[in-house]
Amino acid sequence: MTVKQLSLPELVDACRDLGVPGVGLWREPVQAYGVEAAAKLVRDAGLTVTTLCRGGFLTAIDPAERAAALADNRRAVDEAATLGTDTLVLVSGGLPAGSKDLRGARERIADALAELGPYAEEHGVRLAIEPLHPMYASDRCVVSTLAQALDLAERFPARQVGVTVDTYHIWWDDTAPAQIARAGAQDRIHTFQLADWTTPLPEGVLNGRGQIGDGSIDMREWQGHVEAAGYTGAIEVELFNDVLWARDGREVLAETAQRFTENVRP
Amino acid sequence: MTVKQLSLPELVDACRDLGVPGVGLWREPVQAYGVEAAAKLVRDAGLTVTTLCRGGFLTAIDPAERAAALADNRRAVDEAATLGTDTLVLVSGGLPAGSKDLRGARERIADALAELGPYAEEHGVRLAIEPLHPMYASDRCVVSTLAQALDLAERFPARQVGVTVDTYHIWWDDTAPAQIARAGAQDRIHTFQLADWTTPLPEGVLNGRGQIGDGSIDMREWQGHVEAAGYTGAIEVELFNDVLWARDGREVLAETAQRFTENVRP
Repeated sequence: MTVKQLSLPELVDACRDLGVPGVGLWREPVQAYGVEAAAKLVRDAGLTVTTLCRGGFLTAIDPAERAAALADNRRAVDEAATLGTDTLVLVSGGLPAGSKDLRGARERIADALAELGPYAEEHGVRLAIEPLHPMYASDRCVVSTLAQALDLAERFPARQVGVTVDTYHIWWDDTAPAQIARAGAQDRIHTFQLADWTTPLPEGVLNGRGQIGDGSIDMREWQGHVEAAGYTGAIEVELFNDVLWARDGREVLAETAQRFTENVRP
Repeated sequence: MTVKQLSLPELVDACRDLGVPGVGLWREPVQAYGVEAAAKLVRDAGLTVTTLCRGGFLTAIDPAERAAALADNRRAVDEAATLGTDTLVLVSGGLPAGSKDLRGARERIADALAELGPYAEEHGVRLAIEPLHPMYASDRCVVSTLAQALDLAERFPARQVGVTVDTYHIWWDDTAPAQIARAGAQDRIHTFQLADWTTPLPEGVLNGRGQIGDGSIDMREWQGHVEAAGYTGAIEVELFNDVLWARDGREVLAETAQRFTENVRP
């Protein structure tokens, strides 16, 4: 998503040229290219698919909407398995129209995970609940902190449900380091993502994630927390940024790889 | 601030007409009108000044900037005392340019409170640390949760330092009710403010606070939490909203009073 201006073949080429060993994919471009074809493309290039983004949106009350969401999440699990990644990132969903009940919405996520967790496990895929920054609590994700994500995840086996640790969403939270330790002790850190915090935030606050090193987040500090918690998996960079998307994609990917090298310990 | 398009005399008239018994004032219009004159204006109208907003911005590293901030906060205490309110709301300040050290910034706030707390107490004024929504953590307020605010406040006597509970900033936080109880048990809830959460957020995310009842926050639920914690003080409404500011101020104040009646228990 950091370089969504690139087609999948362009992305694969650019990763190979830059020595980027793995890539997190999003469902929409994968579906447009064809899931099997995308799987072959990355496999033939020797690239690892680190995660698939994203399932989730599990907070609907309406039974037909809930059934559709569950079916879509099962498809996402299938796609992840086809792509050869063991991790499906979940963005849980916001409040249904007119609702003010965060607690109820979080419980409906748990109900959905009880159905999706075993299905994912059968397909060799782990679900990774991603707490999103509290500014998305109403319209995108009622799970706002690692503690909330772990409270949900802990109801299920770690091989079914864990969490996504993304610096952009948790950097302000002084309790997050302890929650990372809690997640690590349970083997529930299913992926670790980087984006920097820059201001002013754009209207709608979706596409202002900062390039690594441009903002307020000490990447090495958070890397230290996840590594101290036992995490040895891939480190992903996920930038939603209108300015970056307007630039040449290969140039942005090269810059991102450079910033990664400068701001993350080997 | 909800009706900043009104002059102070217009505001006082409108409050009297609508039966609004108290008003939270901001320093800038008070200073422009004259602090003594403003104090006489509200006193003569029989209005209570619930709080003065705002002191704070205590995170600077540069010694000259720190000294200037402390001096300005002493002036704010003086102004609060002149206006006859016992509460000065503090917005703590963001990260200094180039800094990524939230912990250090929070410690500098504590250092400043050690100087300002006794000064405030001598003037009959309590400092009320306001945790601001985490989306302001870098550029406006490194204190993002009630827990963080109380961790700071607890280092000082409650008659010197407490907290501001504002629904807009904490509604997403499932640990906030317990923190309200903690604050109440220590007599540290120095004011309670309402604003609703509406989306999409505007660019810069400053002036999109929703009119009471328009958004995702159950005002009675939060009122219940502060009342259960022993709070019996005023309930303020503080809306920063470009759309409301563009309308007729008396009409907005009347609407706000109506919404208050509909969404808050007597």
